[in-house]
Amino acid sequence: MAPSRVRTPRWSYAKSGVDRTVVALALARLLREVRYRAPASHGRPLGGAGHYAGLLRLGSTTVALTTDTVGTKVLLARDVGRWEEVGEDVVGVNVNDLAAVGARPAALVDTILCARPDPSAFRAIGRGIDRGLRLAGCSLLGGETAVVPEIVDGIDLGGTALGFFPNGRKPVLGAGIRPGDRLLGIPSNGVHANGMTLVRRLLRETSCNLRAPRRGGRIPIGRELLRPTRIYTPTIDAIADRPEVHGLAHLSGGGVRNLVRLRSDVRFVLDRWPPLPGLFRWIASLGDLPDREVFETFNAGIGFVVVVAADAADGLRRRMARAGAPDAREIGRVERGTGVAVPARGLEYAGYS
Amino acid sequence: MAPSRVRTPRWSYAKSGVDRTVVALALARLLREVRYRAPASHGRPLGGAGHYAGLLRLGSTTVALTTDTVGTKVLLARDVGRWEEVGEDVVGVNVNDLAAVGARPAALVDTILCARPDPSAFRAIGRGIDRGLRLAGCSLLGGETAVVPEIVDGIDLGGTALGFFPNGRKPVLGAGIRPGDRLLGIPSNGVHANGMTLVRRLLRETSCNLRAPRRGGRIPIGRELLRPTRIYTPTIDAIADRPEVHGLAHLSGGGVRNLVRLRSDVRFVLDRWPPLPGLFRWIASLGDLPDREVFETFNAGIGFVVVVAADAADGLRRRMARAGAPDAREIGRVERGTGVAVPARGLEYAGYS
Repeated sequence: MAPSRVRTPRWSYAKSGVDRTVVALALARLLREVRYRAPASHGRPLGGAGHYAGLLRLGSTTVALTTDTVGTKVLLARDVGRWEEVGEDVVGVNVNDLAAVGARPAALVDTILCARPDPSAFRAIGRGIDRGLRLAGCSLLGGETAVVPEIVDGIDLGGTALGFFPNGRKPVLGAGIRPGDRLLGIPSNGVHANGMTLVRRLLRETSCNLRAPRRGGRIPIGRELLRPTRIYTPTIDAIADRPEVHGLAHLSGGGVRNLVRLRSDVRFVLDRWPPLPGLFRWIASLGDLPDREVFETFNAGIGFVVVVAADAADGLRRRMARAGAPDAREIGRVERGTGVAVPARGLEYAGYS
Repeated sequence: MAPSRVRTPRWSYAKSGVDRTVVALALARLLREVRYRAPASHGRPLGGAGHYAGLLRLGSTTVALTTDTVGTKVLLARDVGRWEEVGEDVVGVNVNDLAAVGARPAALVDTILCARPDPSAFRAIGRGIDRGLRLAGCSLLGGETAVVPEIVDGIDLGGTALGFFPNGRKPVLGAGIRPGDRLLGIPSNGVHANGMTLVRRLLRETSCNLRAPRRGGRIPIGRELLRPTRIYTPTIDAIADRPEVHGLAHLSGGGVRNLVRLRSDVRFVLDRWPPLPGLFRWIASLGDLPDREVFETFNAGIGFVVVVAADAADGLRRRMARAGAPDAREIGRVERGTGVAVPARGLEYAGYS
């Protein structure tokens, strides 16, 4: 399959229907109205707004809570007719956000909205959730199934994950990051569950056949795109107690710009980023996407970044290799300055505006 | 406004598009696949499956987690053009489920799915969430906003709430319920967020004007139906430490049948149920709904039930009166037997099939 390449106009995430600025504006309106602060006897939220997960102190225990959906990847699942992968993603997208604050996942609740409950799709979703829970070491603690044909077309999948910090572990929020630190990257295994609206738009524009492999691919492109989000939990859980781990980032929506969430007053220089995997090169070719778009809409081949003290980098990398990530590699370093740079591609990101 | 009464066929929740049997079947398929049990080092789920909230032991702390959406009440919000009420419902539907296990709410995360982010709707939703948090004493700890026009028509609103058990409080799961216990009921303030699919269907069938009051009503019926779910948190938090409180039930979807969730080996006799409020009589009249349907689809005027030791009933009712529920009243008692009965209406429910 060699779909025709769209040369003009160049595609972008905004053009595909997701304009982050408009979303951010509406969300800011909402958050401005939420002024209430509960008394300390009702749990104490810890700082770190804008981080991957909310942190809350309950007595002597700190917990982390995060919520996310699989997004438009469910539409690809529908088109391909497979639901197990996005079931697993419900777990993956949430536990990876817990890993990004150093929390160990304990429990997940799922939310399924559907136009009608299809038993065979539900069964496949269950299989996927089970697989994700197993990989993350997490329990299913409940869920909600709503049959709402007037609200939802097909199926929407989301969840909320609760994590904690075992044995006196401290949340890892990036405060310890300093110039000289090294960046270790763990490869992704595909697009995960981000940028799917743009991918689907490009597939449609180029009349791509989901059942055929892409140029250079080995399995049908529909299946390749559906591959469940890599779950980084065991790898991060194995190192999150170490004080040399200064920061953690899940490269989800926003791509490498996510690093700025950790600290906005240092510069993340990604000068050893690996070659763009074939899947992303192919997606970029479909829409003539500039590198800037690829690196801020997709994970571009690295799904999780660990910021570590320079002299601990080799030891931590070996530990990560034993805990599920033999492919972890050094991808850059922290310098004085601000923003995120990918020098080999001439990219500079100033952070979230 | 006196819409014509639909005489035949009689309406039911199933006919309005929500068939609980089909949903239960699909959900059972999903849950059968989820076999994984996490090791104790990842938190220990406590029993009580099928209860209102999942319970988890994390070190020395027990937490409760529950997730729910506002359901099709968002469609009424859209029709009326008001979003603040359903924003508040996101809090109410979740914290009331926490109250039903005796947990104090600590944190909420919200999920908004929308076709496009409308800043003024978002602002109103924020105002409603703030109001709900204030009434419940709960913090907003995060959220997810997804713009997914291919999945959602309009706006869907949901959330997940995390609760805990302060000062050594034990979860209240119904194990202490015994024949002779009394049932205290706290009135609802309207339909809350359940049965809305049936209500909307009846409004449509009878060409009801949302801007006019119902017969006997004082505000436009659209506004009356939108009224946010009463939040029972402060009342229940004031009594949940008392050992004489044997069981707690939030009468949401399923109505009085929810009592069976507490214990299936006793009989709940609702022999002092108050007269059906005018709003429910009016809804019943629209579709010629039998009492059986009204009492298992709606809260029928009582939104929360507290099962208490007989000799503590008066004292607890006084305590509830001081903590936000001066209208709490005795509505029945526990007997030997099984199921739920409303003798004055000749109703018997065997529990969930």
